[in-house]
Formats: sequence, C-alpha cells, structure tokens
Amino acid sequence: MEASDARLWIIEALGMRLAEPAGDTLSQRLYAELRALIQQRRLTPGSVLPSSRQLATALGVGRNTVLAAVDRLIAEGFLLSRPGAGVFVAHWQPMAEALDAGDVPVSRLSRRGMRILDFSATLSERHAAFAPGVPALDCLPRERWQRLLRRHQQRAPAGWFDYTTEGGLPALREALCDYLRLSRSVRCDPGRIVITQGAQQGFELIARLLADVGDSVWIEEPGYGGAQACFHSAGLAMTPVPVDEAGMDVASLPTDTPTPRLIYVTPSHQYPRGVTLSLPRRTALLELAQRHDAWIVEDDYDSEFRYASAPIAAMQGLREDARVIYVGTFSKVLYPGMRLGYLVLPPALVDPFRRANARLHREGQYVVQAALADFIAEGHFVRHVARMRERYRQRQARLRDALAPAVAAGLSLSSGQAGMHLVARLDSVELEGALVTRAREAGVQLSPLSRFYLQAPGEPGLVLGYAAASEAQIDTAGAWLSDAWFEWVGKR
Amino acid sequence: MEASDARLWIIEALGMRLAEPAGDTLSQRLYAELRALIQQRRLTPGSVLPSSRQLATALGVGRNTVLAAVDRLIAEGFLLSRPGAGVFVAHWQPMAEALDAGDVPVSRLSRRGMRILDFSATLSERHAAFAPGVPALDCLPRERWQRLLRRHQQRAPAGWFDYTTEGGLPALREALCDYLRLSRSVRCDPGRIVITQGAQQGFELIARLLADVGDSVWIEEPGYGGAQACFHSAGLAMTPVPVDEAGMDVASLPTDTPTPRLIYVTPSHQYPRGVTLSLPRRTALLELAQRHDAWIVEDDYDSEFRYASAPIAAMQGLREDARVIYVGTFSKVLYPGMRLGYLVLPPALVDPFRRANARLHREGQYVVQAALADFIAEGHFVRHVARMRERYRQRQARLRDALAPAVAAGLSLSSGQAGMHLVARLDSVELEGALVTRAREAGVQLSPLSRFYLQAPGEPGLVLGYAAASEAQIDTAGAWLSDAWFEWVGKR
Repeated sequence: MEASDARLWIIEALGMRLAEPAGDTLSQRLYAELRALIQQRRLTPGSVLPSSRQLATALGVGRNTVLAAVDRLIAEGFLLSRPGAGVFVAHWQPMAEALDAGDVPVSRLSRRGMRILDFSATLSERHAAFAPGVPALDCLPRERWQRLLRRHQQRAPAGWFDYTTEGGLPALREALCDYLRLSRSVRCDPGRIVITQGAQQGFELIARLLADVGDSVWIEEPGYGGAQACFHSAGLAMTPVPVDEAGMDVASLPTDTPTPRLIYVTPSHQYPRGVTLSLPRRTALLELAQRHDAWIVEDDYDSEFRYASAPIAAMQGLREDARVIYVGTFSKVLYPGMRLGYLVLPPALVDPFRRANARLHREGQYVVQAALADFIAEGHFVRHVARMRERYRQRQARLRDALAPAVAAGLSLSSGQAGMHLVARLDSVELEGALVTRAREAGVQLSPLSRFYLQAPGEPGLVLGYAAASEAQIDTAGAWLSDAWFEWVGKR
Repeated sequence: MEASDARLWIIEALGMRLAEPAGDTLSQRLYAELRALIQQRRLTPGSVLPSSRQLATALGVGRNTVLAAVDRLIAEGFLLSRPGAGVFVAHWQPMAEALDAGDVPVSRLSRRGMRILDFSATLSERHAAFAPGVPALDCLPRERWQRLLRRHQQRAPAGWFDYTTEGGLPALREALCDYLRLSRSVRCDPGRIVITQGAQQGFELIARLLADVGDSVWIEEPGYGGAQACFHSAGLAMTPVPVDEAGMDVASLPTDTPTPRLIYVTPSHQYPRGVTLSLPRRTALLELAQRHDAWIVEDDYDSEFRYASAPIAAMQGLREDARVIYVGTFSKVLYPGMRLGYLVLPPALVDPFRRANARLHREGQYVVQAALADFIAEGHFVRHVARMRERYRQRQARLRDALAPAVAAGLSLSSGQAGMHLVARLDSVELEGALVTRAREAGVQLSPLSRFYLQAPGEPGLVLGYAAASEAQIDTAGAWLSDAWFEWVGKR
C-alpha cells in the first residue's frame, strides 16, 4: 500500500468511526481508532500518516484534537515522528499467537493459592442467623460514631492523609492501652501497641517477621481458618494440636512433633469450640514457649463477651516475661468493615514491626483511628461492650429457647459462658452435611464444625453464631433447625 | 501458713492496697491484688480464702464487689470453689525461670524479617521536599470529599459494616472501570476488578495465589522496594533485570536465568528511574509471559501524571490475551492514607482472588469506597487529576529552576516527562552519602538512588519528589541542594 493511498483510506476509515455517537472525547476516540488500525496491521509499519492539518480538515475536527491523539501514539511507540519527513507507523512486532487469558484455568493457581481457597470455606458471608463471628450490626451507635468521624474529618492534619510509620495514631494507642490494662489485664504501654488494618494483618506480620519458610507453627484443632490461611501462605508448617475441654492440649502431641517457632492460641474463648484454656495449661504453654524460644500468638478476638464472670485475663499479662504477642481486633466489638486491629508487642519488637508494617502493608485510616480513640477515651466503647454483652446473653438465651425441644431430645450444645456462638454436637458427618445443605436452601447459614479441622475427619457439629441475628431471625432459624434435627432423628 | 492465719493476713494486705487512690473500680483492684498475691505465692496453693461476706465486711466494700473479683479468679483458674467447703487457692505451677521479654534482640527476627527491614530503607516518611511518591496533600478537595463521606456514612446499609466477599463495592468497580477504559486504555469490566486495601495488598495476593515458595519473580533494577518486600516475604526468588532508557531490558539477562513465574514492571513510568517501557519491549515481554506461562504484574502507580503527551496506555490493554494483572492505587492520585487500590484480573482469576482476599485480608471501608465511587462518577476525580497534573508540572519546573545553577555546572536531571519525582545522577556513592546525611541535618529528605538497587553497588543519585512539597519548600530545599552540590564540586 502506498503512502498516498493510506492517506485517503485512513481518513475514510476514521471518519466513519468518529461519526458514531460515544461518550469519549473526540481526541480519545481518534487515538483509539488509530491505535486499532495499527494493531490490526491495517496501517502497515513504515507508512506515512496524513499531516495533522490534513487529518483535521478531512475529519472536521480541531487540529489540537489530532495532535493530542498523535502525540500520545508517539509517546506509546506506535508512531514515530521524523522531523521534516512526517509521522510514520512504527515497526513493531505483534505477538506470535493468541491465548485466551479470559480462560485461565484455576489449576494455574499456585499450590498454596489452591490451599488458601480451601480455608475460605469457613468465611461468614451474611450477618444473619447463624453466621459466626459477626457482631450485632443493628445495635451500632451509628449517630455517635458518625459525629466522631465528622469531628476528625474536619480537623484532620495533612499528615493523616500521608504515608505514616508511627505504628498507629498515638491517641488511639493511648486510649486502647488504658482499656487493655484495665479490662484485659494486658501488660502494656502505648509504645508497645502497633495498630494494624485488622487482626489478619497482625498474623501476617508475625508470620513473616518471626518465622521463616518451613518453620513450625502449632495451631488449635479445630481452629480459626483466617489465621491458618496467613500461616500457610507464609510458608509455615502447621502442626494441629487437639483441643479438649481445657483448651489446646499440648501434652497430647507425640514426642517427635517439630518444635514450634509460633504457637497460635485463642485462650479466652477457643475458636470455634468455645472452651477456655486452663491456668495450668497457660503456664505450661508459657514455659514451653520459653524453652523453645518460640512465640505465643494470643488471639483475643471476642473475650469481652463473657456472661458467667468478668472477662478472663489475657495470657499476655500472666508474667512480665511472657513470650506472648497479643492480637486484638475491633471487628467483634464494633464492626468488621472498620478494618482495625492491633498488636501488643514486647518492646524490642515494636520498631521492627512498625517498619515492616509500613513497608509491607502501609498504615492508614487515621481519621477512623482518631474517632475510635475518642470513642474509647470518652467511655462509649466500654458502654457499648456492656450493652452488647447483655444483648448477646439475651440472644444466646433466645437461641437456647428455640432449640430447647431438640436439646430435650438429646441435641448437645456447648456451655456458652462466653462469645458470640454456640456449638451443637452432631452424631455424624452425614447429619452435618444434610443439615448444612438443607439450611442453605432454607436461607439459614449453618457452619459445619468439621470444616474447622485441618485434619479429616473433623468432629461433626454446627457453629451457631447468634450475635448478629435479630431476635426474630433467631426464632425462625432456631425453630427451623430444631425441626430439621427432629426429622433426622425420626428417620433413624 | 494455716488457713486461719491466711484469712487475717490477706485482709490486712488487701485493705492497705485498696485504700490507695486509683482509677479502677474497687472490684477490678481487688481482683488484681488477689491475683498478685497468688502469683507471688504469698497466698499458697490449697489455702482457704475468707468468705466473701467476711472479706466484704473487713475491707468495707460491697459483697458484690468481692464476688465479682472472686468469680473472675475462679473462671481464670487461680481459685477453686468447692461447694460447702469454700474457696481455695488453686494448685498451679509458676514458670521455672524468668526471661526478660522486653529485651528480645532483633536477631531473633526471622531471616526474612531482617530482609524485610532492609526494604524499609526507602520508605517516605514526611510529605516534604523531597519525599518521593507522595502527592500534594495540600491540594486535596477536602470539603467535597467530606461531603461525600458524610452522605454515605448516613445512608450506609448494615451490610457495609459486615464482612464482605464481593471484591469491593459494585458502584466503585463500575465507576473505576469507566475511568480505566477511557483514561488508561485498560480492557476491563466491573466484574474483573477486585478492590484491595492499597496496591501492596494486591502484590501480596498475586504473590501467594500465583506463585509458590522458591518460584522466580523478575523485577526491575533499580525498582520499588514495597513490591519487592511483598515478593520476598512470600518466599519468591527475585531476579533483578537491568533498566535502561527504554525500561526493563529482558534481553540483557544471561541465558541461564530462571524462567519467571511473575514479572513485575512499571511500564508507564519506571520507578524510580522514570523511563517508559518501549513498545517493542512491551510486546516482547507479553510474548515472553505467554511462552513461560508467567504473569506480568503491571504497576501503574502514577501514570496519570504525564506532561508531554496524554498518559501512556496500559500494557494490559495492548492485547485481549495479555497475561497481565493490572495493579492500581489511589494513593498517588488522592492520598496514601485512604488505603484503597485495585486489581484488574482476567475473568478466571476473579473468583479465586476475591475469596483469597476475603480470607487473607478481609474487605472493608465500604463507606470510603462509596464516597470514592461518587467522586469518580461525578467527574471530580478526572478534574482533580487534571488540576494536579498542572500543579505537578509547575512544581517540577520550580524544582528545575531551583537546581538550574547546579545543572548549568553539570548536574544531570532525568527528563521528567511524567510522574512525581526527578532523578539527579551523581558521580559517586560518596557524594550520594554525603548529601543524604547533610540533607537530613538540614531537614531535607533525600532518597539515595543506590538504595533502590537490589544488587550492590547501585548507581548513585537522588530521587527527588516534588509533588508533595509546597513551592516555598521546593525553593528552599532546591537552593540548599544546589549549594550543597556546588560545595562538593568545589571540593574536588
């Protein structure tokens, strides 16, 4: 094709396309159409473009419109400008063969990627009966919270919008420290706290900064998939430790178990079993950590909600020299979408954790942090916890009432001294599977206990979250579950 | 010590302590004091506690106060209640030896943890001259932004506060998609976008879901420490690829280079060198990715700011079948503290990425996402970008003016066709080090170019961010730098 032909032909081709109505600017469309012609090889490498003046006149657009499009194509390498000679289509190599990227099979995921998806089976997806781990979002003090957010949005210094590396807003770390000392018996000062974007980020930091690929982490069996996904994705080897009525039972491990670098535990209220780690086991675990130069990761996710007595003190506070990193979250006490959590660290680890957090994850949400600092310092936080504790106690009682017929006939429920869920024991994985499937059809979310086990077969049962469900939802879903259970018992 | 003695002694010990003024409730203090006596073995295991009535009377506090403290200690396992016989101090084993956790040496960090800290050397810590990668926080349309936040805080449905798994607010993904198609030539639909809490989270997902421990990732040399820290912490092996005036130069690699699983690249505006990846190299890289079944990670961090022509189109849009994952952030266009970024994925990867993100990191900040969706859809985003482009062009010119004397005498600056920083070449690492040290003393933040290299020795130079600095700051810091450079030149 000769250059002169190209000149006529291109104007015709472009003119037709530009006449079609569209939302883009003329220059953007001209750019896109020219690029398409080049990419489709309809404009061959080496051919000369009409001058910008010619194009503008022929297409009935401004010359600046043409220049903007052409300049961009020059910058991108599709066109070449040779001063004095005009603008040419560049010599560029199209790719050899096409492959439909839209059809990437999931098997192209990494092995660990596939495994991470396994852990997502226990995700709560709706704040209904019986999603576990979700707080009462209908009871949030939204007006007060909005007022605090507004206050700090208006006053925010520019630094809050910037990259920061200070481990979280000092005011939040101070307010939180007072709360943790008083209510959770955590040994703390504001300088030992690092604010994270949720507890998950805390687990990620711990796994990377304190363990290398192949190092061993002991976890509870059954246990929390979110933490396990982090450990697995960091390349750690997980050793499941059985949980009985007194919590994680380290003594039951065979003697050839790999020594731990990390020990992940939910001592106040084991997730999902709901038991409390006994004092002898706590001290034994602290000793074990010292002996092996390991770290205990204490996940204190919902300890605020204890109904029979005051909240159990954190392991971290048991001894000054406890090799414990305390992990907390605001997801359970306020709301998950806030994405704020925190670590309480031994002093020597604070600076490395701050710097690594800034490098790996970046800090942020200082306006929300400031609102939260006031929310705690002004006493709203403690009041909200107290209100929710009463509310959850009532919701648990409501769930027990709804399940009372089944319980009278043999269904076994966990003690429910604490937390936001009950565990119902089931006799078989078949029953578990049948109930979960039928519940889904009935719009009830049942979380199978067996899925919380790393090693098959897990114990069958149901993890029944009651905190997020309204009383009416609990009544309906509870009655449905009781009936469904009876049907199965009747069938046998 | 006999039980009866203990009864008298404990009341005396407690009475003295409780009389001291403090902020806690009486019950909390009683709990803490009793626990301390038990932990210090001053109350020996097996000894009987005075009755709650006795304690209350003797200490002059309410019986409920005593009961609350005692119940908590029973729940925690420090005390045992034997019905009919009273409350006893439990037999529990204190730990064998103390170790000062406050003195954990940094060498106890994992090997990768130590390495992650290395990458933190290039963090920007202040929005002043010349922190690179920080936008003009003094130019944020704060009132409009606050109005949008307020709007959505008030209207937010409960689901926004919950755990979510939908890959980000649909309205944001739609608005963003329109923007990316039009302004960045990204092939996109809203269903292919996953919103993350910043680009870093995007890198983390990519590294874990698409690569296993030991897999190879090719990175630019010099390059971006934030992405490198993510890849390293995921256990990947990094292969530095030299960057020249046409960007990442894959052809320069020795033939025995490990084939890549991931290729990380900043094609629009290489970080930190500032060059643009040429079209031939783009197509070659796309072909290479196809050949090796690898993925290109296209980090398009600041491409909006191009001064000589319209922004360069994204690599991702070059071909339908491009094996590219496009990573974007709002940190550069709006503000870093927002902590929102996004991935544009091939359709088959969307579901795995959504689920893994929900499991590993959790989603959140839906109110901010909603405000951002409106900010984009109502056109404020594009206007802000245009305003900032003009502003940064001016600030760059201002920096060039301030450095003009040095440049006239031989200091070499990068072309500055795009982005938020210039690179000044220096003749020696000694000069680089001297300038950085003296700048710190003078309150000027100089980022040494050599620190952006993975392999020593890096090329000496300075990465000079001009976007975040006010005109006055640029004048002062620029004049300081010019003078300091002259001093050195004079010395030689």
